[in-house]
Amino acid sequence: MDTRCINFGAGPSALPPSVLEETCKGLLNFEGTGMGIAEISHRSKEFAALLAKLEANIRTQLQVPPTHAILFMQGGGTGQLSSIVLNMLARHRLLHPDLGDHERAMDYVVTGAWSKKAVAEAQRLGGGVVHIAVDARLYSKDSKSFDNIPTHDSYNFSPDPALIFYCENETIDGVQFSYDDASPVSFPFHLLKKDALLPLVADYSSSFMSRPIPHLADHAIIFAGAQKNIGPAGLTIAIVRQDCIVDVDAAAKLGAASVPITMAYKTIFDEASLHNTPPVIPLYVASLVLQRMADQGGLKHYEEVNKRKAEKLYAAIERPRAPEARSWMNVVFDVLGEGAEARFIEGAAAQNLKTIKGHRSVGGIRISLYNAVTEEETDQLVAYMEEFIASAEPAAIKV
Amino acid sequence: MDTRCINFGAGPSALPPSVLEETCKGLLNFEGTGMGIAEISHRSKEFAALLAKLEANIRTQLQVPPTHAILFMQGGGTGQLSSIVLNMLARHRLLHPDLGDHERAMDYVVTGAWSKKAVAEAQRLGGGVVHIAVDARLYSKDSKSFDNIPTHDSYNFSPDPALIFYCENETIDGVQFSYDDASPVSFPFHLLKKDALLPLVADYSSSFMSRPIPHLADHAIIFAGAQKNIGPAGLTIAIVRQDCIVDVDAAAKLGAASVPITMAYKTIFDEASLHNTPPVIPLYVASLVLQRMADQGGLKHYEEVNKRKAEKLYAAIERPRAPEARSWMNVVFDVLGEGAEARFIEGAAAQNLKTIKGHRSVGGIRISLYNAVTEEETDQLVAYMEEFIASAEPAAIKV
Repeated sequence: MDTRCINFGAGPSALPPSVLEETCKGLLNFEGTGMGIAEISHRSKEFAALLAKLEANIRTQLQVPPTHAILFMQGGGTGQLSSIVLNMLARHRLLHPDLGDHERAMDYVVTGAWSKKAVAEAQRLGGGVVHIAVDARLYSKDSKSFDNIPTHDSYNFSPDPALIFYCENETIDGVQFSYDDASPVSFPFHLLKKDALLPLVADYSSSFMSRPIPHLADHAIIFAGAQKNIGPAGLTIAIVRQDCIVDVDAAAKLGAASVPITMAYKTIFDEASLHNTPPVIPLYVASLVLQRMADQGGLKHYEEVNKRKAEKLYAAIERPRAPEARSWMNVVFDVLGEGAEARFIEGAAAQNLKTIKGHRSVGGIRISLYNAVTEEETDQLVAYMEEFIASAEPAAIKV
Repeated sequence: MDTRCINFGAGPSALPPSVLEETCKGLLNFEGTGMGIAEISHRSKEFAALLAKLEANIRTQLQVPPTHAILFMQGGGTGQLSSIVLNMLARHRLLHPDLGDHERAMDYVVTGAWSKKAVAEAQRLGGGVVHIAVDARLYSKDSKSFDNIPTHDSYNFSPDPALIFYCENETIDGVQFSYDDASPVSFPFHLLKKDALLPLVADYSSSFMSRPIPHLADHAIIFAGAQKNIGPAGLTIAIVRQDCIVDVDAAAKLGAASVPITMAYKTIFDEASLHNTPPVIPLYVASLVLQRMADQGGLKHYEEVNKRKAEKLYAAIERPRAPEARSWMNVVFDVLGEGAEARFIEGAAAQNLKTIKGHRSVGGIRISLYNAVTEEETDQLVAYMEEFIASAEPAAIKV
């Protein structure tokens, strides 16, 4: 443990050391059962209690209303990019059996690499027409970068789409919707029909459990891979409103695409996330992380700490991006000057500050400030950055 | 560790204690990186080395030829029940674009609960016609039980099916194909076309890495969930012949069903099992288990030990089932006599012998003898059974 580094990785990312130590105990002997958590039956009463507690901890802290189920799945956020299309098109088919595929719009809000990937999957799967409600690149400095969240007047939604998709935080590009309704870069909930069960789908993979989810109850589906804030890779959480847990087989009889059984929310819901053997270790670690969150004051506490961490880090950057659209979770910036980026990374490593290289597709520096990164660790990084800026004449740190 | 029980669970099931201890080290600090295995980037060179070594250890021990890729996926065996249908129907579509769906046969060999489940998923998904090549229930004592593997003359294959499915070991029912070609209850490879690339798909979930796979090279796909012999739940291994890694999007343009991107073998293959974040802990544990296997003499050693374990256990049962079709991995039997089963389970628990209850759908006793169950542990169970039979007058132990 002593030689652990400070890990600013974008995911898989840091986990709390106390949780890892507890996990080790559970791997050898889970709650006195004589078996490790990976060895116990997923149908045992002990495992059922674990699942129930994990669900309750998510439900309480995020204030998930009883209208919404919490499902545990596999396949990551990428798997959900398919599940949401298949299930929401099935729902639309059941509601409007007589429409042709070309009349089933799927509205996508495109603000970065992940929402772009979501569009590609919807186009691959077919069964409806992808409609780009807004593309942030049109509002960028160079007309091709994901460097902003568009303001409310930029959106153009379809009248009755099968789904409306957005990605709340773009991990690669470092942009995030404001969670303050009054901000011009919040998600434009007010533009959507107020009287309907909105088919609103949000990818929360990289910001889940980092702060409250605004208008959670208005969402059809909120999903997240675990490997940012709450656990190891291999677990996916989906919060699904009951009316979106549809009989996909009935929809298929009406002409919708068949849905692989592990991707049908109804299967997962009907069998309480135990249709087949779940990813037991990731679930265990997530249960420990969520319990630790609760013990430390819950989401409110994390919201405050995460806000401070992001503010401190952005304050250390000389030319910050538009303040309201910048991500709390993934701080992306450049170190200007010949060879300066490499020197920056090297100097950080010498201080045990690791995994700060930007995503291979965009380069630069990326600092991820997920829940397990402490305020003290953030302070250490900020101190290093200030030191670097002061010492390295030609370099400027810029978002 | 001291208080660990002897775990005969059917999956999730026992893991070697030395592997669990090593896993704990890696969870805190993986190979001196300063990060735990769940925290390190899946695109790091350290993780790439882990994956490569895991693949090599599977390839060498199972003698997987270069014609076959080894893919790491999520979703379990249940996810593969969909993947095989979608990918193999896409392949059939590319080979025979002009056939109608009703001309695309999918041959299923039904020998137990899992192959029955496979049939149900193929029927759900559609795009072809499910043809039952044989149903073991027709050859059972009571015409409705999965208590046998049919003999070779019982099979009826379609002329050019899109896939031929069998489940090598039925975990719930305790029947397994013999791996001796000369046995009447081996899989009838000799009945299949010799000159073709067979569309032969095998579910090896509960026997993978327990003994060699006969005619491995003749298979299109062999898949297995990790949680029996090689690791924790959440990892799925698929061995796929290159001609079955098809362009599913091209097939979709010809009318095949669209394939969710995480279920397309081509995506997984093209991106070396890193299309999206893989289940890093299950992969890590599997890599340790496979390395331990290699260190202990490889698959040959396990084959010998597993054979002895099964023989000893079956010898302790008074009325064994047809010897050749009984499973090495899951030994299913009844304890006859009023209240005897409960007494048997209780007495076993008193000797720290746990998780021996049969599957909720069939009842009785089930002893799973996966790789991590040692010969000594099997001996302890056998000694207990002999003691129980000797002491409990009215009880007989019967398969």
